[in-house]
Amino acid sequence: MFSAVSTIWVLIAAALVFFMQAGFAMVETGFTRAKNAGNIIMKNLMDFCIGSPTYWLVGFGIMFAGSGALFGSIDFMVRGDYSAVSPDGVPLYAFLIFQTVFCATAATIVSGAMAERTKFSAYCLYSFLISALIYPISGHWIWGGGWLAELGFHDFAGSTAVHMVGGIASLVGAKIVGPRIGKYSEKGESRAIPGHSLTLGALGVFILWFAWFGFNGGSTVSMKGDDVLESAGKIFVTTNLAAATAAVFTMFITWIRYKKPDVSMTLNGALAGLVAITAGCDAVSPFGSFCIGIVAAFVIVFGIEFVDKVLKVDDPVGAVGVHGLAGAAGTLLTGIFALPGSQEELELFGLAYGGGFKFFGIQALGVVSVMAWVAVTMFIIFTIIKKTVGLRVSASEEIAGMDITEHNIESSYADFMISPSGADSKQAEAVPVNVAIPVVNNSKPGAKMTKLTIITNQNKLTMLHAALDKIGITGLTVTNVLGHGMQKGHTEYYRGAPVSIRLLPKVQVDIVVCKIPPETVINTVKKVLYTGNVGDGKIFVTDIENVIKVRTGEVGYDALQDNE
Amino acid sequence: MFSAVSTIWVLIAAALVFFMQAGFAMVETGFTRAKNAGNIIMKNLMDFCIGSPTYWLVGFGIMFAGSGALFGSIDFMVRGDYSAVSPDGVPLYAFLIFQTVFCATAATIVSGAMAERTKFSAYCLYSFLISALIYPISGHWIWGGGWLAELGFHDFAGSTAVHMVGGIASLVGAKIVGPRIGKYSEKGESRAIPGHSLTLGALGVFILWFAWFGFNGGSTVSMKGDDVLESAGKIFVTTNLAAATAAVFTMFITWIRYKKPDVSMTLNGALAGLVAITAGCDAVSPFGSFCIGIVAAFVIVFGIEFVDKVLKVDDPVGAVGVHGLAGAAGTLLTGIFALPGSQEELELFGLAYGGGFKFFGIQALGVVSVMAWVAVTMFIIFTIIKKTVGLRVSASEEIAGMDITEHNIESSYADFMISPSGADSKQAEAVPVNVAIPVVNNSKPGAKMTKLTIITNQNKLTMLHAALDKIGITGLTVTNVLGHGMQKGHTEYYRGAPVSIRLLPKVQVDIVVCKIPPETVINTVKKVLYTGNVGDGKIFVTDIENVIKVRTGEVGYDALQDNE
Amino acid sequence: MFSAVSTIWVLIAAALVFFMQAGFAMVETGFTRAKNAGNIIMKNLMDFCIGSPTYWLVGFGIMFAGSGALFGSIDFMVRGDYSAVSPDGVPLYAFLIFQTVFCATAATIVSGAMAERTKFSAYCLYSFLISALIYPISGHWIWGGGWLAELGFHDFAGSTAVHMVGGIASLVGAKIVGPRIGKYSEKGESRAIPGHSLTLGALGVFILWFAWFGFNGGSTVSMKGDDVLESAGKIFVTTNLAAATAAVFTMFITWIRYKKPDVSMTLNGALAGLVAITAGCDAVSPFGSFCIGIVAAFVIVFGIEFVDKVLKVDDPVGAVGVHGLAGAAGTLLTGIFALPGSQEELELFGLAYGGGFKFFGIQALGVVSVMAWVAVTMFIIFTIIKKTVGLRVSASEEIAGMDITEHNIESSYADFMISPSGADSKQAEAVPVNVAIPVVNNSKPGAKMTKLTIITNQNKLTMLHAALDKIGITGLTVTNVLGHGMQKGHTEYYRGAPVSIRLLPKVQVDIVVCKIPPETVINTVKKVLYTGNVGDGKIFVTDIENVIKVRTGEVGYDALQDNE
Repeated sequence: MFSAVSTIWVLIAAALVFFMQAGFAMVETGFTRAKNAGNIIMKNLMDFCIGSPTYWLVGFGIMFAGSGALFGSIDFMVRGDYSAVSPDGVPLYAFLIFQTVFCATAATIVSGAMAERTKFSAYCLYSFLISALIYPISGHWIWGGGWLAELGFHDFAGSTAVHMVGGIASLVGAKIVGPRIGKYSEKGESRAIPGHSLTLGALGVFILWFAWFGFNGGSTVSMKGDDVLESAGKIFVTTNLAAATAAVFTMFITWIRYKKPDVSMTLNGALAGLVAITAGCDAVSPFGSFCIGIVAAFVIVFGIEFVDKVLKVDDPVGAVGVHGLAGAAGTLLTGIFALPGSQEELELFGLAYGGGFKFFGIQALGVVSVMAWVAVTMFIIFTIIKKTVGLRVSASEEIAGMDITEHNIESSYADFMISPSGADSKQAEAVPVNVAIPVVNNSKPGAKMTKLTIITNQNKLTMLHAALDKIGITGLTVTNVLGHGMQKGHTEYYRGAPVSIRLLPKVQVDIVVCKIPPETVINTVKKVLYTGNVGDGKIFVTDIENVIKVRTGEVGYDALQDNE
Repeated sequence: MFSAVSTIWVLIAAALVFFMQAGFAMVETGFTRAKNAGNIIMKNLMDFCIGSPTYWLVGFGIMFAGSGALFGSIDFMVRGDYSAVSPDGVPLYAFLIFQTVFCATAATIVSGAMAERTKFSAYCLYSFLISALIYPISGHWIWGGGWLAELGFHDFAGSTAVHMVGGIASLVGAKIVGPRIGKYSEKGESRAIPGHSLTLGALGVFILWFAWFGFNGGSTVSMKGDDVLESAGKIFVTTNLAAATAAVFTMFITWIRYKKPDVSMTLNGALAGLVAITAGCDAVSPFGSFCIGIVAAFVIVFGIEFVDKVLKVDDPVGAVGVHGLAGAAGTLLTGIFALPGSQEELELFGLAYGGGFKFFGIQALGVVSVMAWVAVTMFIIFTIIKKTVGLRVSASEEIAGMDITEHNIESSYADFMISPSGADSKQAEAVPVNVAIPVVNNSKPGAKMTKLTIITNQNKLTMLHAALDKIGITGLTVTNVLGHGMQKGHTEYYRGAPVSIRLLPKVQVDIVVCKIPPETVINTVKKVLYTGNVGDGKIFVTDIENVIKVRTGEVGYDALQDNE
Repeated sequence: MFSAVSTIWVLIAAALVFFMQAGFAMVETGFTRAKNAGNIIMKNLMDFCIGSPTYWLVGFGIMFAGSGALFGSIDFMVRGDYSAVSPDGVPLYAFLIFQTVFCATAATIVSGAMAERTKFSAYCLYSFLISALIYPISGHWIWGGGWLAELGFHDFAGSTAVHMVGGIASLVGAKIVGPRIGKYSEKGESRAIPGHSLTLGALGVFILWFAWFGFNGGSTVSMKGDDVLESAGKIFVTTNLAAATAAVFTMFITWIRYKKPDVSMTLNGALAGLVAITAGCDAVSPFGSFCIGIVAAFVIVFGIEFVDKVLKVDDPVGAVGVHGLAGAAGTLLTGIFALPGSQEELELFGLAYGGGFKFFGIQALGVVSVMAWVAVTMFIIFTIIKKTVGLRVSASEEIAGMDITEHNIESSYADFMISPSGADSKQAEAVPVNVAIPVVNNSKPGAKMTKLTIITNQNKLTMLHAALDKIGITGLTVTNVLGHGMQKGHTEYYRGAPVSIRLLPKVQVDIVVCKIPPETVINTVKKVLYTGNVGDGKIFVTDIENVIKVRTGEVGYDALQDNE
C-alpha cells in the first residue's frame, strides 16, 4: 500500500534535485573562463549522464542491497527486494530516482574544482567510478544501514554523504591535477583568475537554492503524519534561514577583509549555508540554523582562503570550501545544535542543549571516516588515471582553451569576441622564453620614431609580451582583430558539418619605439613568434611623426622613455 | 491534525515563489547595463538574504500576531501562537516560509527601479526596513486580519499586498534617487538606455511566469475539498490566460505605436498580466482574466511611457508600471470582474455582474490606503537614508559602473570585452567641459593630412568625444584595446586573491585632420585628458598620404570636410 | 468528488511543462546567432501567448469535446461538459491548463527549425493555426477518444501527439522557407553556422529535462492507487535513464565520427532520449528505456546529418531530428519494448516480449497517419502564408539580423560588441559581386608599400572580402570599431524612448599592398561600397616602411607575395 502524498513528495523532490545539475553547470561555467565554457558544461552533463545508468547498474545495489556494515551488495539493474530499506509508502522506483539524483550531485561537485585543465576522457572515467563505488559505499554506511547508521550518525540530507564526499574528492583531484597555469606565481603567491560570467554564476546559485528545498525537504521521504508534516515545514525554514544568514555574514566578512562586499564569495556563502544546514535541517531550531549560517560564513571565507593560499590547491569555483569544509562543519554543528527529541528513537542530541559529547563524537567520527575513505580511494583513482590515460591536458591546450582542443568548438560563444583574459598573461613566467638579443640603445634624443605593428595568433600574446618586457618595452597596445594571411582559414566540424572559418581571431600588438632600435624589436619578435608554420604572423613598420605624453606634455623621444 | 496535501501544496509553492528571486535577478540584470550586472545581482541576493532573517525576527509577528486593525505585534523569532491565522491543516513553519518568500518578492521589486545608481549600503538598509516594517504592516491590513480584511477587501495573492507595495516603493525610490546620468536630455526628453542582455531578461520573465503558478496557485494555502481543488485549477487557467493575453495585446500596441513589435515591452506586458490577475485569480472567470489581460496591456504600455515621459522617473526595468500600476489596476479590476459567489462568506462581487459599487469602492479604498502608506513611509525612509549614509553613488562611480566601484570586480563578464554603451556617451552634457582652444583652420586645400591616434582610459571617451565635437571634429573611430604604458597594470582583489591585471582596457580614438591643424586637436586632447596622474594617455601623430570618401569620390582635403 | 493528490500532481506538472518554454527559448537562442536572439525569444514567447488563448477559445474543444473519430467539436471558451474525457478526480480547469501547456510545446518546436529567416508576422499566423487546428485534431485522434485511441495506439505523453507534430511541422516549414543564406555552398555542401551561446543552449536542455519529469510524470493525470504510484515512479526512472543513455551514446558516436565529443550534438542527444521515451515511458522497463536511449542516440546523429546533408533542410537547432525523428522512433520502439500487461485493458504489448506485429503495426499506423496529417496541412498553411503575407525576410534583413529589422533593437546584447560571425562571410557567394577592375601589377620588387585602411558598415564586410579576394588580396585584418563620419548616428526607439546612438558599430579593414597598385584596390573598394548614401565609408592611405614575414624572414615586397 503506497502513499500518494509521500510518493508525490519524493518524485517532485527528485525533479528538483535533478535541476541542481543546471545550477552546478551555471555556477561552474560562470566562475571559469569563456574558453572552457563548453567543456565544463559537457562535464556537468556527462557526470549526470554517466552517473545515472551506472548507479542503476551497480551503485544503488552497493548502497542499499543487504545490510552489511561496510557494503550493500551487487544487484545488477536494481532487481532485488528493497522493502527493508525503501521508505514506507514509497514505490521502489521513486526511491531509486531520488537516490540517483543525489548520487549525481556528489559526482558533479568535482568538475568545478578541477575545471579548466582536466582531460575530458579522464573526467568521464572518474565520474563512472565515483557513481559506481566511492559514493555508494560511504552512502551505505550512512543511509544504507551500515555502521555509521547503526551508531546514530545523523546526516539528514547529506552534508557528509553527498557534499563532503564531493568536496573531498574535489580537494584530492584538484591537488593531483595541479593548479592552472598562471594561478600561482613563482614565489607561490595565489593570483585570482576571474570567471567569465558572474551573472550566470548567480543564476546557478539561485537554481541550487531553489532545488535545495527538494534536496532537504524531500529527504523526509514521506509526507504522512503530523510529525513529518511539521518537520517538512521546519526543514524549509531552517534551510532557507541558514543560507540567507550565511550569505549576509559572508558579505560583511568580505566587506571588512577586502574593503568591498565580494559578490562571488557571497554567492559561495549562500551555498555554504545550504550545505552546512543539510545534515541537521530536521534536527535544529530556526535559531540553530541561524547560528549554523553564521559559522558557515566564516568557514567559507577563511576556508577558501586556506585552500587557496595555504594548501595552494587551485579550486576555481570554491567547491572544496563550499562542499567539503562547510559539509564537514555542518555535520559537526548538528552535534552541537540538534534539539533534544529530534531523533526520537535515540537519546542523542546536541552539545548546546546538554546532550554531552557522545553525539558530537559520533558526528566527528563519521566526518573523519568518510573523509579518510574518500581521500584514500580518490587518491588511488586519480593517481591511476594520471599514470594511464593522463589527467591533465597539455600546457598549450590549456592556454588555447579546452573548448577548441577537446571539443572542436572555437568557443561556446561563437558570436562574441573573446578578449585574452588578464589571467592568461600571467602564465608567461611558466613558459621558458630565452631571448638573448643584445639590447642596443639609440642614445640620441630626437631620433626617428617607428611604429611596429605585429599581427599574430592570440595564444602567442603572453610570450610576446614577456619577451618585449625583457628588452625594455613595456608600453604596448593590444587589439583583438580578425584576420588571415596566407593560411586562408581552416575547417572544423560542428554537428557534423564543416565550419569554414576564413577570418581567424588574431591579436594586433602596436609598439612605438625610439631609443630601442626597431631591428632589436623585430629580431626579438621573430624569435618569439617563429615556429616555421603558416600563421606565425607579420610585422609592419611605419614612421611616426610625433608622440605626445598627456600627463607630462613631453614630446617625441622623451614621451617614450618610461615605456618604450 | 495537519493535512498532507495542503502542506505539500504550500511548501512547493514556497519553493516556486523563492525561485522568483532568480527571475527578478535575470530581468533586472538583463534590462540594465553590463557594468552594473554584478551589483544588481548582489542587491537581488541581499534583499532576499536580509529579508529572510528580518521577517523571521520581527516581520511575521507584525503581520500575523494579534488581530489589531493596523498592526499585529512584536513576536521575536516567531514563537507565539498563530493557530487563529495559520491556514487550516498547514503547520506554522510551512506558513512562515510561504509568507517569507512573499515578503522578499515585494522587497526585490525596488532594486530594478533604482538600478545603476543606488549605493549598495543604502539599498541594504532599505531592504531591511521594508521587510521589517512597511510590508508587514500593510500586509497585516490585508492578510493578517487588519481593517481591510475586515471590510472585505479582496487581494487573493497580492496584487496590492505584494506587487503594488513594491511598485510604489519603486516609484518613490526612483524619484528620490533621481534619473541615471544621460537618461534625460537638458530639455527633459527621455532617452532609452538599453539593457545588456534581452536574452537573460526574457529568461527571467519565463522563470517568473513559472513561479507565478506557485504564487497564485499556492495562495489557496489548502488543497482540501472539492471547492478548493476546483479553485486551484481555475487559478492556474486565469493566471496563465491573463499573462498570455496581456503579452499579445502589448505586442500589438507596440507594433502600432512604435512600428515594430517591441520585445522588452512585450516581456513587461506578460509580467503586467501576471501582476494584474493576482488579486482576483480565484474570483474571476477565464473570460474575466482575458479582459484583465487586455487592460493590463494598455496599462503597461501607457503606464511605462507616463512614468518615463511625464513623471520623468527613471525606472530601468519598468517596475513601477509592472508592479505598481498593473498591481493597482488588477485590484480594481477584481472589483469589476469578480464572479457572484466567488467570496462565499461575503455578498460582494464585481460591477460587471451587477455587484454594485460597494465592492469596487472597497477595492479602491484598499488601493489608495496602501498606496498612501507606502508612499509616505518610503518617502521618509529614503529621505533619511539620503541625508545620512547617502542614497546615490557619485557621478564618476556611476559612469565607471558599480561593479568596479562597489564590488571591485572589473566586470561581471571578465572575459568579454565591454564596449562603451551608446547611452554613456550622452551623459557628456552633464559633465562640464570647458574647451577654449581657438580654432584655426588650415584654409588651403591640399594641405598635409595627419592622423592622430589617442590612447586613453575608457571612461574618458565621453568627454573626449564632446570636446572634439566642439572644435569641429565629428568623424572618428573608436576601438577597444588592451594596453599599458607606464602604469603597468594594477592589482585588485577577487575572492581574497589579487588579480594582477597588466593589460588594462583602454580606448583608441583615431582622427584624421587636414583643415583643423593637428596642434589644435592635440591641445584640446591634452586639456581634456590631463589629470596629472599616470594613465592620462598618449597621442601618436602619423602622416596620411590620402583619404578617399566612397560616397562622393572626393579625395584628400575635400574628403574630410564634413567630419574632420 | 475530486482527488487532491491527482489535482496537485496535474497542476504541478502543468507548471513544469510551462517551464519548457524557458528551455526552448534558451536552446533556440543559444543555437542561433546573437543578431537574431531577440527575435527568436519573441517567437518563443508569442507561440505560447498566442497559443494559450487560442487553445482555450477553440483548440481544447476540437481535441476533447465529443467523441468523433476524427474531430471533437467547436466549444468556444471551454464551456461544455467534459466529464467523459476529463481524468477521474481532476477538475476540468486543471485538465485544461495541463493540455494547454502541451499544445504550446508542440507549437514552439517549430520556431527553432525556422529560426533566423522567418518573418515574425508569418510566424504569429502559423502559431495561431497549429494551436487552433493542426495539433488539436491529431491530438483528438490519440488522446481525445478518436480513431487511433480506439485502435489501441499507445502514445503515453506525446512522442507523436506533441513532439512529432512539432517536428514534422518543423521539417515542412524549414523546407518551404529555405535554408539560411550561407548554409549551403553553390555545390550544395552543408556548412555549419554555430550558435552564439552554447552555455545558454545547455541551460535550456537542463531546463527541458527538469520539466520533462512533469511532462511524462504528470501524464498519469492521477496519483490514486498503488498501480498509478508505482507507474509514476517508474516513469521518472525510464525518462531519466533514456535521456542519460542517449546523451552518453551520442557523445561516443560523435567522438568516433567527428574525432572529438561534440557538445551541441550531445545536448541534442539528451533531448532525443527524452522525446523517444515519452511514448512508452509508462510501458517499458528501465532496461527497455536504456535500449530506447541507445537507439535515440543513433537516430539523432544520423538523423540530423540526414536532414542537413541529404534532405538539405536547414534546421538550426536540430528540431526535426530531436522532435520529429526521435518522436517517430520512440513511438515505434514502444511497439517493441512495451511490457506485457503494461496496457491492462488491451492485450497489446511489444515485439521484444513476443507481442507480435499487431501492436507494432498500430504504432506504425499512428506515426504514419499523424505524419501525413501534419505534413499535408502544414504544407498548405505555409504555402498560403508564403503567397500572402510572405514567409521569409529579405536577404538584406537576414544579413543584418532580425533583431534590428523586425524589432528595432540593435542587438539583444546591447553592451557586448558583436563580431561578424564566420558564417556570414560565407554567404558572399550568394551575393552577386561583379568587380571588373583590371588588375595591373607593379612588377618591380622593392616597390613602395602602402597601407589602405577602410572603415565601413559591418554588413559590407562579406562583399568587400569577396571582392578583395577576386583582385588577389587575401591578407587582411578586420577590427570591430565604433565610429561615425558624416552621418552622426541615428535614432531608434526602445520601449518608446529614443535611443540616440552616435557611435555606430563599424568595421575597419586594413590591407597592405605592394605588387597590386593601391589605385586598383581603391577602385574596387569604391565599387563595392558605393551606394550613394551617407555611411558608405572612407579609405585612408598610408605609407608603410617595411613588412617582415615571421615564418620566412622575407621582407618588403617578398613578404607580401602570398597574400597581398
